[in-house]
Amino acid sequence: MKIGFLIIGSEVLDGKISDLNTKHLADFLRQNNLEIYESTTVRDDADSIKAGLKKLFTQNEVVITSGGLGPTKDDITKETIGDFFHKKMLMNQEAIKIAENNYKQFDRIFPGQEHGYAYLPEGFYPLSNSTGFAPGFYFKEENKILFSCPGVPREFNSMLNDHFFKITSEKIDHKIHMRHFVVRTKNVPEEKIFGEVDPTLWEKLQKFGDVSSLPILMGVDIGIKIKASSKEALEKQEIELRSIFASSPISKSIWHIGAESLEQKIVSIANEKKITFGFAESATGGLCSHRITSISGSSQSFIGSVICYDERVKINQLGVNPETIQKFQVVSPETAIEMAQGLQKSLNLDFAISITGYAGPTGGTKEFPVGSVCIGRAMKDGHSSASIFNLKGDREVLKQRFSQAVLYALLEELEKIAGI
Amino acid sequence: MKIGFLIIGSEVLDGKISDLNTKHLADFLRQNNLEIYESTTVRDDADSIKAGLKKLFTQNEVVITSGGLGPTKDDITKETIGDFFHKKMLMNQEAIKIAENNYKQFDRIFPGQEHGYAYLPEGFYPLSNSTGFAPGFYFKEENKILFSCPGVPREFNSMLNDHFFKITSEKIDHKIHMRHFVVRTKNVPEEKIFGEVDPTLWEKLQKFGDVSSLPILMGVDIGIKIKASSKEALEKQEIELRSIFASSPISKSIWHIGAESLEQKIVSIANEKKITFGFAESATGGLCSHRITSISGSSQSFIGSVICYDERVKINQLGVNPETIQKFQVVSPETAIEMAQGLQKSLNLDFAISITGYAGPTGGTKEFPVGSVCIGRAMKDGHSSASIFNLKGDREVLKQRFSQAVLYALLEELEKIAGI
Repeated sequence: MKIGFLIIGSEVLDGKISDLNTKHLADFLRQNNLEIYESTTVRDDADSIKAGLKKLFTQNEVVITSGGLGPTKDDITKETIGDFFHKKMLMNQEAIKIAENNYKQFDRIFPGQEHGYAYLPEGFYPLSNSTGFAPGFYFKEENKILFSCPGVPREFNSMLNDHFFKITSEKIDHKIHMRHFVVRTKNVPEEKIFGEVDPTLWEKLQKFGDVSSLPILMGVDIGIKIKASSKEALEKQEIELRSIFASSPISKSIWHIGAESLEQKIVSIANEKKITFGFAESATGGLCSHRITSISGSSQSFIGSVICYDERVKINQLGVNPETIQKFQVVSPETAIEMAQGLQKSLNLDFAISITGYAGPTGGTKEFPVGSVCIGRAMKDGHSSASIFNLKGDREVLKQRFSQAVLYALLEELEKIAGI
Repeated sequence: MKIGFLIIGSEVLDGKISDLNTKHLADFLRQNNLEIYESTTVRDDADSIKAGLKKLFTQNEVVITSGGLGPTKDDITKETIGDFFHKKMLMNQEAIKIAENNYKQFDRIFPGQEHGYAYLPEGFYPLSNSTGFAPGFYFKEENKILFSCPGVPREFNSMLNDHFFKITSEKIDHKIHMRHFVVRTKNVPEEKIFGEVDPTLWEKLQKFGDVSSLPILMGVDIGIKIKASSKEALEKQEIELRSIFASSPISKSIWHIGAESLEQKIVSIANEKKITFGFAESATGGLCSHRITSISGSSQSFIGSVICYDERVKINQLGVNPETIQKFQVVSPETAIEMAQGLQKSLNLDFAISITGYAGPTGGTKEFPVGSVCIGRAMKDGHSSASIFNLKGDREVLKQRFSQAVLYALLEELEKIAGI
């Protein structure tokens, strides 16, 4: 079953928002061994929408659309798709019932039959929306299935979850099992991995399926898409792949096998081993804490942080000695260590990690230009250490990379403490 | 000049990363009154890339591609585009020179003529990469221009900046001036804005150009795309639009006219009026601080924050009275006020703002279920207050909405202090 995705939204093409639904859709489809074959983004005008539909239906049996189902005049998806299939707009009692329910969940009353939500093209079926007002819809014709959702990510997700597999189940081939086998590496550029480090790796992996190499922040994700006729056969392939990586020189740069994120891995180790931690964040300005607290359950081990943007906070809240800053500069291993030690003591943590650096565009010194960052570590037993990195990028990229360096360092320490 | 964008990357369709280049490209093109007409995302296979090119060149004179220019075997963009135009791959001396320079900037030595970067399809021109290793390229034929960049956002951006307008300048119509006039509102759903609040607004705006309504977090951005033959004519239209909004009942929900972000606006007012501030963040876990510190110059007024995830941090670092938590719960206006007061005193801030709430999926009480959030404010002069919100969404959405509520509250207070 080939699936095309049509994103209807001038706001995406005008850069007002970035599309997040493709990622959600891909993650959702993978549960049933399905994937997006291609996607197209068009403006909110009838000709563009129809051209997009025509293009996608030549290659795909199922087309999912997002966007243009709202109540304002720029929302023309429903009428345009009806027109594409030569269907008249009709009042639809089921759609009215669904709209009434959608409104009721927010304690509001559906304005009634005059409202656009009361109408659907002939032969189309309405879909309830458990997180918003606008109903979705679907339509089947010969070998085609069309499935339309609102563009708001929360509504898009809930509508997929609530309805998609029920509508497409007859088309799904339950005999194919697919898995993305992902190996996550750090600190080695992709060219080196498949060059100097392990020149035969790509060929070895290719025997199992499509291989991909994806540079992410300060690492590379190596992906192999494996397919098999049973779960057991998939698992056998996974075991073989694991042994290929275990015997490769790249193995010492692998921080995880699997799709789990760095944040998830940190939280699960810390929670399991009951290790409490926190950050003294200067250059990352809260990003490290934000990344960790995005994981449900993080409150078990993440106690808190001090965002010490101003020097006075480093001195007054973290107890950094002003003379250390004077003598070594604020971005220095010495300051980083005192920041971590101060946080460890004041929050009584098992492990504290600090970061001080220059995210730019201004600032920096001759010794430590923009992109320099010092990471400090302090343990409850009194041990402390620091490391220095020089990274590249603009302010936003540097904040992301700095936080990645901190989380890599945190994972390493947690694994040491946990004896992994 | 119509521009199509071809995103080459199975990693996007497989949900491993979200596409960020469309937003960058749109922002970049707008500087020269240009826009993306449509975009297509395809997998890294030759047939899909060629079908995408064919489709985009039927409607667009210029096609920009991103992705597939790297050194690994899944990078097939260059060969495939050459094949699409029926061009042979040849060794290209200029490409070698550019690759050598790209490597030199990272203190590395280009491996030499055997490397894939040394080759280009006949008649193609290489493009230097000021932030990465892989060269880009362009090709002109009759009325077509093809421009290919790496997919890594930093490299994609720098290549556009360095080369795009030089290559396409002859095609750009410098007589058309275009602007996105954006009016940013908060706390009123779009259906209400153009319904109960101001039912004639849409028609009035439509006379100026395409109108759009975009729900974002806890607000709606109303956009009007205005075009004119001179900058003066554009400005005249903007003045008329401003007066329409000034006399509309929606005016009291407008927090900004223009594309400036909430974070930028906060930092520019705080810096101009020399107001220092910081956050006591519980439920947002660092996100408020991260959003503010993404703005260059924020260190002038943003002093620091305490991420008080654990109750002990609220008590020990912020001085919240344990009895307050016992009596009123940790998510309560009373606790929120003490958190803000504690932060204000300990960091000696002009204004401190706190947040305590339930981001879920677990937690919450009968009175304050998941989605409840209390925001506290404390000023240097001793004034303090708190407000309560009930929001909907999953953990990630709630963190985003909570932080938006905090930043709205912060902006309001700053405007009050600044007398705006």
